[in-house]
Amino acid sequence: MTDPLDASATRPLEGGPSFSLANRIERAVFAICWLIFGRIVPPPFGKGWRRFMLRLFGAKIAKGANIYPSARIWLPRHLVMEEGSTIGPKVDCYNMAPITLRKGAIVSQRAYLCAGDHDHRDPHFQLVTRPIELGAHSWVAAEAFVAPGVTLGEGAVLAARGVAVKDMPPWTVWGGNPAKQIGERPSLG
Amino acid sequence: MTDPLDASATRPLEGGPSFSLANRIERAVFAICWLIFGRIVPPPFGKGWRRFMLRLFGAKIAKGANIYPSARIWLPRHLVMEEGSTIGPKVDCYNMAPITLRKGAIVSQRAYLCAGDHDHRDPHFQLVTRPIELGAHSWVAAEAFVAPGVTLGEGAVLAARGVAVKDMPPWTVWGGNPAKQIGERPSLG
Amino acid sequence: MTDPLDASATRPLEGGPSFSLANRIERAVFAICWLIFGRIVPPPFGKGWRRFMLRLFGAKIAKGANIYPSARIWLPRHLVMEEGSTIGPKVDCYNMAPITLRKGAIVSQRAYLCAGDHDHRDPHFQLVTRPIELGAHSWVAAEAFVAPGVTLGEGAVLAARGVAVKDMPPWTVWGGNPAKQIGERPSLG
Repeated sequence: MTDPLDASATRPLEGGPSFSLANRIERAVFAICWLIFGRIVPPPFGKGWRRFMLRLFGAKIAKGANIYPSARIWLPRHLVMEEGSTIGPKVDCYNMAPITLRKGAIVSQRAYLCAGDHDHRDPHFQLVTRPIELGAHSWVAAEAFVAPGVTLGEGAVLAARGVAVKDMPPWTVWGGNPAKQIGERPSLG
Repeated sequence: MTDPLDASATRPLEGGPSFSLANRIERAVFAICWLIFGRIVPPPFGKGWRRFMLRLFGAKIAKGANIYPSARIWLPRHLVMEEGSTIGPKVDCYNMAPITLRKGAIVSQRAYLCAGDHDHRDPHFQLVTRPIELGAHSWVAAEAFVAPGVTLGEGAVLAARGVAVKDMPPWTVWGGNPAKQIGERPSLG
Repeated sequence: MTDPLDASATRPLEGGPSFSLANRIERAVFAICWLIFGRIVPPPFGKGWRRFMLRLFGAKIAKGANIYPSARIWLPRHLVMEEGSTIGPKVDCYNMAPITLRKGAIVSQRAYLCAGDHDHRDPHFQLVTRPIELGAHSWVAAEAFVAPGVTLGEGAVLAARGVAVKDMPPWTVWGGNPAKQIGERPSLG
């Protein structure tokens, strides 16, 4: 997954674009395709078709993965979805850095996977991007938020509206803002 | 309020639908009607018309209740609104189990009343639904969240962005995520 | 900034409008103009045009300020944006009282600047409005919430999903719901 994004050399406060022209064209073309060919074919009929479209733009999508038409993918090339994983309705997958859903990982409605940030300590307010990984059988519940760089371990659960700012160990349950561990989950293994 | 939903026998992880065909058709027909006849008649002219439409699909809506056109009702049959209660703009009333607004209860913009959950302890990730009740004169403020099974007592207030995960006694004020009691409210009585 | 809004004499619970007819017409005309002339001209081409439209309706917008087309301004007359300040995509600027962005202040996607509230201690549930001020170089990150009456000091940072319910001193970093101070930011000065 080589990444030609070179935002690290930009100056957000000076009003210029943070990304190269090639990157912005790629995203615009995908966004238009997704709007026309992704959203006009309603679920559940268009599952395979949406997978095909995402793959065409560089995403790695396993056979049984499911992406809802109202989900928003920032850059398909930065998306990896393993078998049986799901991105639900109106999820915002802000994958400025790669976002990976392992086998059976589920992201519920309107959750926000946020892989981009700004360095507020930097006088230039530099963009910072860090990958997100959602472990096998993990669950990001409705309207939850996953911060840049966070990894959910296998089977970890982030409760509805939870805001994960640090890594969550396997088979733990977290909730609140900021999210704290509130329980454990019996392992499926 | 008999409930023919039989989601408890489904297997969400196997990709099949969680609800019967009849239930899905009912919701689709309502969603289309609401979109066409609910949203093209803008407030305040269409109040009575929206009440009529919800009643047609099985909701129990008292005379002075008010539902904004941009609100989303999952299943009208699971909605009870008493006199003077209000469901505000872009509220998501995810009433997989019954949701009841007592007299004068108010739900502000973009709040999320979430009566459906998954049992993360169950290997089949079984859907769990629990009713929500908002007591008389209670107020769910903007962008707040009410979890499945939660009851707001009479006059209780959930502050903006508050996330209620347990019952709130009458005439108390709660805020934060998870919501904690932050004050009391003088009773109107 | 004289304010002809006289909501303090209204009775929200009796179902009447909270604002004068003149106020509602002003907002409706602006909303239609913004929809047609603001959103059909996509960024970055329409920056100047959107500034012009907001000024026409009474906003004070400095030359380099940037408002995204999908942002929602409740009342342009209550908006002050100084040089280099930004209101990002889908931000809800609910400026029932004046909202001021000082030089270089940034509000990220889907944040909610909420200058209107109801007094839950009042039997009439009276509307209460209080101004919001975002200091120079302050940053309200993605999906954060600023409550009525709150001031962010110069350079203050409210983290993503943070809910600010009290004033934030200059060059401090806050996060969580309710937001607490979680760090300091080196001053740019």
